[in-house]
Amino acid sequence: MKQRKILLNESEIPDKWYNITADMPNKPLPPLHPGTLQPIGPEALAPLFPMELIKQEVTTDKWVDIPDEVRNIYSLWRPTPMYRAYGLEKALDTPAKIYYKYEGVSPSGSHKPNTAVPQAYYSKQEGIKTITTETGAGQWGSALAFACNHFNINCEVYMVKLSYEHKPYRKTMMNTWGAKVFPSPSDATEIGKKILAENPDTTGSLGIAISEAIERAASDEHTKYALGSVLNHVKLHQTIVGQEALKQMEKAGDLPDIVIAPFGGGSNFAGLAFPFLRLNFEEGKNIRCIASEPSSCPKLTRGEFRYDFGDTGGMTPLLPMYTLGHNFVPAPIHAGGLRYHGAGVIVSQLLRDKFIEAVAHDNLEVFEAGVIFAKAEGIIPAPEATHGIATVIEEAKKCKEEGVSKTILFNLCGHGNFDMKAYEDYFAGNIQKHELTEAEIKASLAQLNTPTI
Amino acid sequence: MKQRKILLNESEIPDKWYNITADMPNKPLPPLHPGTLQPIGPEALAPLFPMELIKQEVTTDKWVDIPDEVRNIYSLWRPTPMYRAYGLEKALDTPAKIYYKYEGVSPSGSHKPNTAVPQAYYSKQEGIKTITTETGAGQWGSALAFACNHFNINCEVYMVKLSYEHKPYRKTMMNTWGAKVFPSPSDATEIGKKILAENPDTTGSLGIAISEAIERAASDEHTKYALGSVLNHVKLHQTIVGQEALKQMEKAGDLPDIVIAPFGGGSNFAGLAFPFLRLNFEEGKNIRCIASEPSSCPKLTRGEFRYDFGDTGGMTPLLPMYTLGHNFVPAPIHAGGLRYHGAGVIVSQLLRDKFIEAVAHDNLEVFEAGVIFAKAEGIIPAPEATHGIATVIEEAKKCKEEGVSKTILFNLCGHGNFDMKAYEDYFAGNIQKHELTEAEIKASLAQLNTPTI
Repeated sequence: MKQRKILLNESEIPDKWYNITADMPNKPLPPLHPGTLQPIGPEALAPLFPMELIKQEVTTDKWVDIPDEVRNIYSLWRPTPMYRAYGLEKALDTPAKIYYKYEGVSPSGSHKPNTAVPQAYYSKQEGIKTITTETGAGQWGSALAFACNHFNINCEVYMVKLSYEHKPYRKTMMNTWGAKVFPSPSDATEIGKKILAENPDTTGSLGIAISEAIERAASDEHTKYALGSVLNHVKLHQTIVGQEALKQMEKAGDLPDIVIAPFGGGSNFAGLAFPFLRLNFEEGKNIRCIASEPSSCPKLTRGEFRYDFGDTGGMTPLLPMYTLGHNFVPAPIHAGGLRYHGAGVIVSQLLRDKFIEAVAHDNLEVFEAGVIFAKAEGIIPAPEATHGIATVIEEAKKCKEEGVSKTILFNLCGHGNFDMKAYEDYFAGNIQKHELTEAEIKASLAQLNTPTI
Repeated sequence: MKQRKILLNESEIPDKWYNITADMPNKPLPPLHPGTLQPIGPEALAPLFPMELIKQEVTTDKWVDIPDEVRNIYSLWRPTPMYRAYGLEKALDTPAKIYYKYEGVSPSGSHKPNTAVPQAYYSKQEGIKTITTETGAGQWGSALAFACNHFNINCEVYMVKLSYEHKPYRKTMMNTWGAKVFPSPSDATEIGKKILAENPDTTGSLGIAISEAIERAASDEHTKYALGSVLNHVKLHQTIVGQEALKQMEKAGDLPDIVIAPFGGGSNFAGLAFPFLRLNFEEGKNIRCIASEPSSCPKLTRGEFRYDFGDTGGMTPLLPMYTLGHNFVPAPIHAGGLRYHGAGVIVSQLLRDKFIEAVAHDNLEVFEAGVIFAKAEGIIPAPEATHGIATVIEEAKKCKEEGVSKTILFNLCGHGNFDMKAYEDYFAGNIQKHELTEAEIKASLAQLNTPTI
């Protein structure tokens, strides 16, 4: 019997996160104040985030200690298993060796608790009573609800009203862990009340939900705000994934030629890829790291590298990033976690410097990949995860054509148990292609009056 | 950092199932033909089941080899983890040591694939092209769809129409693994057509769905029928759970004083408990094994031990079992897997001989237990699993009152990802108590004209 799973013991949970900026030859450009266009320092973030996270956001230390209390909660589901995908290899009839790291074993079903737990922990350390956040499809809100429950912190989630109504089960999951969930816009905030007064029937948007969560956090010194991707400290926390994967590849007596992960804001990709990029930087290895994005939201493959806002409303500092423009509205694909106009700062710089690659996949192609995977390996992947699988299949087919056996590792970042509606739509033929025209992308970027680079 | 998880390697997946009937001092009474009331032999099952499963149904061998191909598919998720429930112990402030075996890591999210995989395997060996079954809430249908996909067997699931409409995600899960799912009653069978003609608006029942699945299986020599609980061979397959648990308890340097599992037809309970009962039989250990049933369907605690039909329609042989009467209709609680009027034959004999115990829990009590568990341990349990948790909490509180530290092991047989509607109803105050009166139970049993024992 061939061994499928490569497991680690709890004592092997890494005790440090890896900060890739320490190894990058070109450091990311600084964020700018949108008014003065001058670089801003970490103090600008103090009203919204706990101080320890702000320090992590700007640290140049290569390694950051993981507190024991965080590792203790990680141990509820970590180390996560790595699988050799024998079933998928057979289904593709490929000479490639395919491995995947499975983050869907977390209580909320994705990689998101990897950062939710330390964010809640540092908040508790600093006496914070309430954490607010926004959520679209609900993955991030669930993870934060789970984490806050463990530290006895109030959690307020502003959930886009359309999702609140269409995905009641995610809301109930958050309630079960004790979180308060508001349909956004809500009457719990001034901005929410204003929008409701103007347009009582609005279904909300992620931009509005962010504004509500930020308003609540800014209005009370014991309340802070939490983000589930994009920022440096979020990527830092996610490197637990790749560090475990490194140990597991060693146990398997193998090393990937190609590392693949889906790309939304970048934390999932960073989590798996950065610890392998470290080998490229430190040891001159040549591991290809590929980010997989939806072709309906192709900031990495077709966006522009320039300063832009992190949010739709233009309330954040200006960040140097690959972007489609902060007003870009991605098509309503089921992979809600990948519907973001820009890429995190570190990943953007790495792509610009050609240390990483990016590919885009069409909406139909990714569901086809998801079903191939579910039949071959059993686990039904989240729509976000199917993007990485589509890239894996592409690379595995190349191996077959070229008759070479490469080792491919990808991040199966979550299960699809809460996304079966997406598969239902796919089987019913209701999933459409979303190929953007060059003109659409140009039009979105033309609206920007932010600094170019 | 305290170690929470006790893990096994794939090479430690047991290679034999344990057949408890070999160790039972009083063997179960034989099934009877409902017409002649004479004992019937295994040949009566041949039209419906593959021969190897019929052999397992009646074998007196203590150990049955697990085929390598079955172990290979088991390895997609087995061995399953065992957890020390430090969070729950702390929440209950109990001196008890609590462990749980977690079966929710299977692709379909419960223990059901443990038997679905061998059932599909033996069917394939015997040239069977199609397996039919019924499903209520969808757990069993999902498991069988998953298993049939791996052996390239057609899978036809007759899903109670009410569930088909209320639980579309379970249906889509089955479709993803390639199964055909029919809302029952359907026009794919004669009985379905007849019922639809008489009552086009019927929402169906498990009894009707069983009838449709059996009709299809009986009408074609290459089509067989599969059951997800109750029968001896199903219990046999589930002993993989308890055998792994035994090894894990050894690794933890511990042995349970009390083993607890939810009880529907008995396969979940049997799976965990039988390998520990073996120690009682073989080594004179005194491990208490407790079955947890809903107080709205209390066949073990308040039913009668007598001959009764296994199905509502009265199509099966007469089986010696604890029963509430085959016409008993349990209240529509969310723990659909526990809504069965009778108990499997082996478990019934064990209870009659006082080798096991049974307790019943109210519907409100089990959801309270489920939320306590979700907050303490992260995982949101399936409604069926919450019944076992309620018993664990009861026993752990007794330990506290008595100031003794007992070791408790229970089977967390599935996650609640597809059952969030149940939690939503609980939070909304829409879960009612279902306490049956003595008169209701007597009235149901009084309808029986089957042999008493």
